[in-house]
Amino acid sequence: MTIHRINPTARWSDITVFKGIAHFVEVPECEQTDINSQVQAIFRQAEASLAQISSHKGRILSVTIYLTDFALLDAMNRLWDAWFDAGTAPSRACVKAQLADPHYLLEMAFVAAAGDDFSK
Amino acid sequence: MTIHRINPTARWSDITVFKGIAHFVEVPECEQTDINSQVQAIFRQAEASLAQISSHKGRILSVTIYLTDFALLDAMNRLWDAWFDAGTAPSRACVKAQLADPHYLLEMAFVAAAGDDFSK
Amino acid sequence: MTIHRINPTARWSDITVFKGIAHFVEVPECEQTDINSQVQAIFRQAEASLAQISSHKGRILSVTIYLTDFALLDAMNRLWDAWFDAGTAPSRACVKAQLADPHYLLEMAFVAAAGDDFSK
Repeated sequence: MTIHRINPTARWSDITVFKGIAHFVEVPECEQTDINSQVQAIFRQAEASLAQISSHKGRILSVTIYLTDFALLDAMNRLWDAWFDAGTAPSRACVKAQLADPHYLLEMAFVAAAGDDFSK
Repeated sequence: MTIHRINPTARWSDITVFKGIAHFVEVPECEQTDINSQVQAIFRQAEASLAQISSHKGRILSVTIYLTDFALLDAMNRLWDAWFDAGTAPSRACVKAQLADPHYLLEMAFVAAAGDDFSK
Repeated sequence: MTIHRINPTARWSDITVFKGIAHFVEVPECEQTDINSQVQAIFRQAEASLAQISSHKGRILSVTIYLTDFALLDAMNRLWDAWFDAGTAPSRACVKAQLADPHYLLEMAFVAAAGDDFSK
């Protein structure tokens, strides 16, 4: 059974897929330092990642949210709740953690179902 | 291949299952603030979650334990070791993390094998 | 479908495998307290773990790195980048976390593809 890797570098692959199950991690690739911009950036990036494996945000299985400050939780939750279509929210853990880049307010680790062409 | 979601809300699903592999997260749904009560609550909840996917505690694959204070580790381990039947303990990581609700002493993120009727 | 468990104790199994997907966690089993020794210990242990499930470091899907101090990140990354053969790096999250044993500088949680004999 093939392991699919999207954009492998020396340090990480943007996405790995095995048996139709994808792992990918997003940090906010944006200049803005406010929580709304960073959450929206992560969601945009996640949608782009999912598109690369013939999937979409309705097929996310699990998200681990690393948040640097729980004062940001309400703002994140507002965008989060609006992002998912009814009935498609994943299992989720949310914990406080410091991240490698002090610019990042949060990081999200996703497990998702890839499209059928990635199930082989 | 179907994604099964148990009790999806706008924010999360209690459990997701894809290809027979389940993800779910438990925080202590109890009023008590001592570690023993909270660990027991999480175990009760995990057993109830597993029952909903035709599974049981002998089919847990991985647990990530987020503990707010390592002074609680010994108490948690005593209950943990007693909970698993011989030969069924999962892979486990245990790290210190602050949680969203200051009432919570710990949170556990589970990966488990669902029952056969959830493998399709 | 069988759950394979390698070295199950009362507290954890060294590795669990279900449907060809393995979960295992490594902390540095060495006396040394410097980051280079501890990272190398984890990599040696991960290679030994993977060998037990007919797999190898080219089949790692996801790693969650819990690092106790980001001052250690560059040293870890140098060894990390050298460890993976070109095109085989996994998805990866790296967050700061305190660990149960103050001797440990880092802990890594792996998801990997097991060998074909563990896919049943």
